Amino acid sequence: MPARKPTWVIEKERARRAAAAQTVWLFGLHAVRDALMNPAREKLRLVVTKNAADKLADAITTSGMDPEMADPRKFPAPLDPGSVHQGAALEVKALDWGPVAQVAPGDGTTRPLVLCLDRVTDPHNVGAILRSAEVFGATAVIATARHAAPETGALAKTASGALERQPYLRVNNLARTMEELRDMGFFLIGLDGEAETEIAPALARAGDRPVALVLGAEGPGLREKTRETCDVLARIPYARAFGSLNVSNAAAVSLFAAQTGG
Amino acid sequence: MPARKPTWVIEKERARRAAAAQTVWLFGLHAVRDALMNPAREKLRLVVTKNAADKLADAITTSGMDPEMADPRKFPAPLDPGSVHQGAALEVKALDWGPVAQVAPGDGTTRPLVLCLDRVTDPHNVGAILRSAEVFGATAVIATARHAAPETGALAKTASGALERQPYLRVNNLARTMEELRDMGFFLIGLDGEAETEIAPALARAGDRPVALVLGAEGPGLREKTRETCDVLARIPYARAFGSLNVSNAAAVSLFAAQTGG
Repeated sequence: MPARKPTWVIEKERARRAAAAQTVWLFGLHAVRDALMNPAREKLRLVVTKNAADKLADAITTSGMDPEMADPRKFPAPLDPGSVHQGAALEVKALDWGPVAQVAPGDGTTRPLVLCLDRVTDPHNVGAILRSAEVFGATAVIATARHAAPETGALAKTASGALERQPYLRVNNLARTMEELRDMGFFLIGLDGEAETEIAPALARAGDRPVALVLGAEGPGLREKTRETCDVLARIPYARAFGSLNVSNAAAVSLFAAQTGG
Repeated sequence: MPARKPTWVIEKERARRAAAAQTVWLFGLHAVRDALMNPAREKLRLVVTKNAADKLADAITTSGMDPEMADPRKFPAPLDPGSVHQGAALEVKALDWGPVAQVAPGDGTTRPLVLCLDRVTDPHNVGAILRSAEVFGATAVIATARHAAPETGALAKTASGALERQPYLRVNNLARTMEELRDMGFFLIGLDGEAETEIAPALARAGDRPVALVLGAEGPGLREKTRETCDVLARIPYARAFGSLNVSNAAAVSLFAAQTGG
């Protein structure tokens, strides 16, 4: 008789199967088109109005999908109310970018640059961050598996295509992944409005090493463990005593500073 | 018998009276508190639940307002559905910051820095831009009177207090205001993803002159007349061929570059 698996193993396997089964409804002409054109994207159902089907004709042909035609007045895809779907919705699986050790170094054509997000939950902010990460050539955006913005239609729409192209990885233990990045040669800079060091000298300290920028959510900021795992904490220099940057703006400024050398 | 006013004068006076009469409902504990604490803000009606009144007690006392108590289940303020009001809504008039010639130079303690927005209409983007403008010490954010994000509750909430502190001016003719800024000594840099010059050398060309950064909406970008009125067009350097920055991220990066010298 084979040994029974312990409960926690069964639970873990169940969670993994559930995650693999999880699907996302992307919506809006732009997001749906980008996903249809992405051969790496596992696509399940495409629901379109006649009008949207005409506009997406090329992309639908490229994808080889068989669209379900829908009446615009009773659009059958299970979207949140108020979602501006423009007559197009596509059910997909989350993209599997592979392990951090494989993705973070990039393809060797540019200096690796990683952005770590510590519990940034707002999908609009994460969508905008993926756009900036793509523009400034980040090799990976790494977020926590829990308490982070999941790949949703709202995130995809804000990301404006970047979700299909910008590696976005979710990890169970951010601090451990940061240690892994350090072992790979990354210099870890945590963004913290209260830090004494400004971002330019922090980047200078990185020298020729690849950089990982670590940002927390507005309000709580970096968790204690995340903070301790950084090589240095740094702040974006500001002119006024009041106010603070929105997290996606802080990410954009940090990426720009890293890319242009501070 | 006095001469009759021509129709266009009557129309113009009517429009001005209507604008002066226009009010905005701010909502959410943070935005309402900031407005209550701002002596420059003309406040008309405060609607709060018992719970919100307790949380805002100090601010209500400071403002000298007499709140209307409301039942959380039938909150009477005329807000858009889905507005997360947290039991607090405040009817106010738009802030009058005064003319550009007075506001743009600042108070002389810092180098003047102005941000011009050419038809940026999304209130969430403009709210985030006001936060960044405040953080990086912009003396003024200038937008068009029409086709721009009006001061709304949604803008105020995204601005997270910056709407009360960051001068936000609306002008009828942006190109004319840009000429006015140039006459005041400003060097006008238009952001354009297709420009040959990068932002750092463009800022270097400004030398010791104060800088005005000019941004258009995503998609249409700068209008022809706006583009022609700039001293130079510049782009934020990017690493990838695909993708583009969200307009509030482009604004944050430009302001950071201007403040730190590129």
